[in-house]
Amino acid sequence: MNKINQDLQRERNNCSFNIQELTTLIDGGPEKTKERKDRESVLLSKKDDVFDGVPEEYLSHKERYENAIRKSVILFGLVRKMQEEGKTSITNYRDVVGGLLGSSVLRDGSPLGLHYIMFMPALLNQGNEEQQAKWLPRAWNCSIIGSYAQTELGHGTFIRGLETTATYDASTKEFVLHSPTLTSYKWWPGGLGHSANYCIVVAQLYTKGVCHGIHSFIVQVRDEDTHMPLPGMKVGEIGVKLGLNAVNNGFLGFDNVRIPRSHLLMKHAQVLEDGTYVKSRNSKLNYGAMVFVRVVIVYDMVNYLSKAVTIATRFSAVRRQSQLKAGQPECQILDYVTQQHKLFIGIAACHALRITADKLWNTFHDINEELVGGNLERLPELHALACCLKAVTTADTSAYVERCRLACGGHGYMMSSNLPLTYGLVTAACTYEGENTVLLLQTARFLVKTYQQMNTKTLTPTVAYLKTAAAKGFCDIWLNTVEGVINGFQLVALRKISHCVECMSKRVNSGMSFEDAWNITSVQLVAAAEAHCRAIVISTFFEEIRELAKTSSAQLKEILYQLVDLYCVYWALEKLSDLLLYTPITHKDVEQMHLWYEETLTKIRPNAVGLVDAFDIRDDMLQSTLGSYDGRVYERLMEEAMKSPLNAEPVNETFHKYLKPFMRGKL
Amino acid sequence: MNKINQDLQRERNNCSFNIQELTTLIDGGPEKTKERKDRESVLLSKKDDVFDGVPEEYLSHKERYENAIRKSVILFGLVRKMQEEGKTSITNYRDVVGGLLGSSVLRDGSPLGLHYIMFMPALLNQGNEEQQAKWLPRAWNCSIIGSYAQTELGHGTFIRGLETTATYDASTKEFVLHSPTLTSYKWWPGGLGHSANYCIVVAQLYTKGVCHGIHSFIVQVRDEDTHMPLPGMKVGEIGVKLGLNAVNNGFLGFDNVRIPRSHLLMKHAQVLEDGTYVKSRNSKLNYGAMVFVRVVIVYDMVNYLSKAVTIATRFSAVRRQSQLKAGQPECQILDYVTQQHKLFIGIAACHALRITADKLWNTFHDINEELVGGNLERLPELHALACCLKAVTTADTSAYVERCRLACGGHGYMMSSNLPLTYGLVTAACTYEGENTVLLLQTARFLVKTYQQMNTKTLTPTVAYLKTAAAKGFCDIWLNTVEGVINGFQLVALRKISHCVECMSKRVNSGMSFEDAWNITSVQLVAAAEAHCRAIVISTFFEEIRELAKTSSAQLKEILYQLVDLYCVYWALEKLSDLLLYTPITHKDVEQMHLWYEETLTKIRPNAVGLVDAFDIRDDMLQSTLGSYDGRVYERLMEEAMKSPLNAEPVNETFHKYLKPFMRGKL
Repeated sequence: MNKINQDLQRERNNCSFNIQELTTLIDGGPEKTKERKDRESVLLSKKDDVFDGVPEEYLSHKERYENAIRKSVILFGLVRKMQEEGKTSITNYRDVVGGLLGSSVLRDGSPLGLHYIMFMPALLNQGNEEQQAKWLPRAWNCSIIGSYAQTELGHGTFIRGLETTATYDASTKEFVLHSPTLTSYKWWPGGLGHSANYCIVVAQLYTKGVCHGIHSFIVQVRDEDTHMPLPGMKVGEIGVKLGLNAVNNGFLGFDNVRIPRSHLLMKHAQVLEDGTYVKSRNSKLNYGAMVFVRVVIVYDMVNYLSKAVTIATRFSAVRRQSQLKAGQPECQILDYVTQQHKLFIGIAACHALRITADKLWNTFHDINEELVGGNLERLPELHALACCLKAVTTADTSAYVERCRLACGGHGYMMSSNLPLTYGLVTAACTYEGENTVLLLQTARFLVKTYQQMNTKTLTPTVAYLKTAAAKGFCDIWLNTVEGVINGFQLVALRKISHCVECMSKRVNSGMSFEDAWNITSVQLVAAAEAHCRAIVISTFFEEIRELAKTSSAQLKEILYQLVDLYCVYWALEKLSDLLLYTPITHKDVEQMHLWYEETLTKIRPNAVGLVDAFDIRDDMLQSTLGSYDGRVYERLMEEAMKSPLNAEPVNETFHKYLKPFMRGKL
Repeated sequence: MNKINQDLQRERNNCSFNIQELTTLIDGGPEKTKERKDRESVLLSKKDDVFDGVPEEYLSHKERYENAIRKSVILFGLVRKMQEEGKTSITNYRDVVGGLLGSSVLRDGSPLGLHYIMFMPALLNQGNEEQQAKWLPRAWNCSIIGSYAQTELGHGTFIRGLETTATYDASTKEFVLHSPTLTSYKWWPGGLGHSANYCIVVAQLYTKGVCHGIHSFIVQVRDEDTHMPLPGMKVGEIGVKLGLNAVNNGFLGFDNVRIPRSHLLMKHAQVLEDGTYVKSRNSKLNYGAMVFVRVVIVYDMVNYLSKAVTIATRFSAVRRQSQLKAGQPECQILDYVTQQHKLFIGIAACHALRITADKLWNTFHDINEELVGGNLERLPELHALACCLKAVTTADTSAYVERCRLACGGHGYMMSSNLPLTYGLVTAACTYEGENTVLLLQTARFLVKTYQQMNTKTLTPTVAYLKTAAAKGFCDIWLNTVEGVINGFQLVALRKISHCVECMSKRVNSGMSFEDAWNITSVQLVAAAEAHCRAIVISTFFEEIRELAKTSSAQLKEILYQLVDLYCVYWALEKLSDLLLYTPITHKDVEQMHLWYEETLTKIRPNAVGLVDAFDIRDDMLQSTLGSYDGRVYERLMEEAMKSPLNAEPVNETFHKYLKPFMRGKL
């Protein structure tokens, strides 16, 4: 073990609470902490092999892919071993695979990720029993590797517009897959470029001359033995991206490719041998899968954000720059209140977002049996919540991570800080699984509907606050408490929704179509959906922390409430115009809020390093020169630089080839 | 010429103003447009050589460097040719070199950039006549290549804390350069890794046992013939970064390296042969250089932003997704008001920021003779303005560029869109040449001082509005006009400054030191400096457009005022809490503002493509699959993907080496 940087050590010595206690709380109990640590030990048991060679960022795109396959085979081999030893099951591998993909062991994603995240779940959710029996065991032990192809070059958001066709030919009992246009090429599926040999393909189903909309098919893309693309398949990778460059995102076009009838995933809909289409029993169940995926994304974001704040906070404790007072030694940059302003909100947000995701996750699981039983009453509500929570979480996390990176100055710009890669991973989530603006507008649609029924219907739990807020109005609000801010946010959500409804009504009454009125009001509708989400997150955070605090030590309890305060007042100040417009907050209250905020930063300051230590991210999973536990920042920066292949030789050959002739005027 | 996408063509047909007229206005006159186009033609005359081979993003880090040298030698060779033909001069190559570096011809920067941007200007500004005579001609014709080494591993912001020492040895009449610690290694200088053979080094000057603070020295780093590092120099590159990966940023450590006394740049200070230190006549003149560099950064940002909005706007005209009304064809995403909200502010900001930079640039040049003559009265004011303008511009531009990228959905995440590289270039500017938070606090310091002298002194022009605002107070403000918003912003700036002063006074009065009071108020101080900057930008934009409109056609005039409206109301809504707190704006005004904003978006919509066409960025300089003039978005995406070396073979060798054994359970 290396010697710990003195400043970091002093921070830890001065921490007022038991770091282990907070770690346990984050994990959800001591057994969960032990499970996680065991899992990490297994996954890192071959780390020397995994991290062998030149750091990935120096490689060419092709070499990076090849290295990703090499590493993925080692790591998913360990996952398979855990499966064989019964340490993980097919319905509960989120912790294992999610933990692996979310760590920085794979750096920039894996070509095998989608196999676990999308291919197997699609088989489970959309395949009938026979299909599951046939395909799942092969997928489970990785004797086939799958991808999931929905998005096309021309269509992402509007999936009804997908152009790939699957036309049933009763004479041969086959579907004919075809890509009629360039824009119908599948584009983006992870691992599809050169890794997967199977794929779930979403296409427009035609039978007996009628289009029945989009359905999923299992399609073999490559020969299992030679890996050559099968006839009629034009497959390859889509090229370099901002991030996720180890994922091998692919494209796929079909030239009248024939697949057996049995390759239509038939849990929900079927095509009989003669071509008769049998309707889905319940098409809305798919919304359940979407809720699930979006909550998982929130957990992913929390994971990345924990890394980013760990890196930036430790660096800020080690880095000394300038003087607070003339003549004093240079101070830790963590002592600058502007720096605390950049970092602490990210720490608090890790807890706020994780806790809100937990709540939604538990609610979803509690009612899952109802859902499967056909009682879909709460589905629209949960779907609306998952939509805005995914959008707000991914957008906020992207912003927090960039703040962390910028807070590390130039060194945050180094790839070896791991902050740029982390940003690349989180910003991608603003677009995939539902583009954020589109998702917020879906939530807005639900809210507008809810608002219009408010006086005639009982509201479902996550929107019930709207009625309470409407009844309570402005009274009893004292904004300089967490409860006051929560009430304020709930009022803001209500008023923003009602204001949008009014705007649209006026426009419709003056002759505009509803759709045009919706469109021109949409910037405000997005803001209303965001306000709803913020009200939910802040109130859930506060309520759940109140529960958790009951079983916490006094020291930890204090810290937890400080985090709630910080999150609450930070967002109150960020959304101050809404509070000023829709609550009776005064000038004086605002001044108090600034004081409250500044004081909370000061209270958190001495425990900042302890708070990020509690996320308990091993150096091997953090992979950052700036964020390691021991704080050897400058040594690591130099060590990493020396790994650059350019530094292996004192003079690069381009000097003789180009530079010298140029300098001598000969080029 | 390829066929133009029909949607784009229709947009152009429907444009209400003369695009060429706006281009001319942007360039600053028809001659300027011609000059720029001529320059671009020269710089692109060897484009086939420049763009030869596999796209840069697929290369390894080392190959990327080598390609950057290959390309730079071609391109700067053309620059040298232009110099020889008298088409550019040593004091006015910003257009040529800046235009080249700012285009995407070099993709991700150049190892030779700093030679022009920092090395030569440092010789000019800090070298005496003799030194200039000796070094400038060699630098000018590139027979030596220089870099500029100030920042160290341990110090960036606080340059007084630099650790590199230059100790004068009178016995040999030499300076001894030394790096006493790891953190004293120079870190970041562009081109220093393996390209430059000379370097300006900033070090603490010691003579006769006394430290005289930091001074600049010209140091030969590598042998001119062999390019081998000279004895005592530990030099190399710092490794991969978020962006600027072709820049070859380097590190440099000295082990008691001796250089002649004459290598101290002696325009402002000297060390005589016997070691006597002769003070600088005017140390503040350096602030002038900083103002200059920061205005140049604003122009750079405008250039990158113009590219980003061109790409995203053209893509949004070509991309069709979903239906505004059921049963209708899918609409151009540019028709969604949320999309207009994401893009149009960026277009307006290009004009607002360029025009503000012009104003500052002209003011700076107008008073430059005064400066050189020793009249430095206006320097603090201009310095304070340049600080906040650099900070706000780089931060805003980063945000606008990311909005543009995200507005392009998944395709914006493709490197071939050129949006990720553009972001990498602009976000770097938030950190270099003065970290943004530090700069805003410098402006705040000036503003606080100004405020405290407001009743006793005449205020300089850029802060004179504070006095007017204080005198006028709340009366005569009508917020739903541009003038009203400007008055509002000026009041906001005044009140935020005065509020900070009050907060600090209270704290000092209750026993806190001034420094601690400053620190804990610093989040609000940063906001006050930002408010000052916004007041300046919006008022300057409005005033200058009013001038420009006088000589514009009626059609263009209309557009120009729409852009002012948009910029003004967008920022009023963004900063609404300030207006609500510090002006008498009402609920009703805010509703009107939303309507004003929505209507302005609707007015600009039909001219959006024309507005970005007017930036007149050639496809070869734009380098984007999504943004080309002809709108062949999908074809280009596929063409670019096919350039991936991974797509050159149907099966990658890792299938046989790793994947197949893994799938068969043998790994």
